Amino acid sequence: MYSEKVMDHFEHPRNVGEIENASGVGTVGNAKCGDIMRIYLDIDEQGIIRDVKFKTFGCGAAVATSSMATELVKGKSIQEAMEVTNKAVMEALDGLPPVKVHCSLLAEEAIHAALWDYAQKH
Amino acid sequence: MYSEKVMDHFEHPRNVGEIENASGVGTVGNAKCGDIMRIYLDIDEQGIIRDVKFKTFGCGAAVATSSMATELVKGKSIQEAMEVTNKAVMEALDGLPPVKVHCSLLAEEAIHAALWDYAQKH
Ligand code: FES
Repeated sequence: MYSEKVMDHFEHPRNVGEIENASGVGTVGNAKCGDIMRIYLDIDEQGIIRDVKFKTFGCGAAVATSSMATELVKGKSIQEAMEVTNKAVMEALDGLPPVKVHCSLLAEEAIHAALWDYAQKH
Repeated sequence: MYSEKVMDHFEHPRNVGEIENASGVGTVGNAKCGDIMRIYLDIDEQGIIRDVKFKTFGCGAAVATSSMATELVKGKSIQEAMEVTNKAVMEALDGLPPVKVHCSLLAEEAIHAALWDYAQKH
């Protein structure tokens, strides 16, 4: 049912945690299942994402997509991070079953919300 | 949104894993969100549950209820374990938001399926 990459990122999620005094924080909820996700970004003066952490109460698909999404935006510019789509994350994970696609949207939305939070503060 | 006990069992889940040559194994799926749960029971000759482990791809509520449910059935007789209801597990966790109640059913169903599997083999 799940690809090896999904299982790997589910069982060994990257970048789980919080960042104190983060440059941007994004919190989003999934209306379909009631789960929540929060992403913390640490952005330097050149606008590069130096660090990123996430926390979620969501399912394995939400954990795996967030883990992969944080890997994809780490070290990138704000502009590049905005272009990391849900589709790119799912492709990097070798796909997800259709019933779990809504879970994967949490990561993309939370990153956008965190970038928005950063932009508002600057 | 979540009680302290739910957060504790979500962040430090008890009895996660598998049991090789388990006396009974129960696997159930949640039609609403597509998640799966598997429970392994190790039952001795007196019919006492000596060990129990679970694995799930489900959300934080599924993890927390499974963790609590495995704690509640450990050391119990088969009869006592059959009587551990979803309601008892939720009470032991100081409740769950209504939208997550369906997630908590996975644990009860998986324990019943594992006890059924054991009964069929004996
Ligand atoms: S079921 Fe809620 S995030 Fe997957």
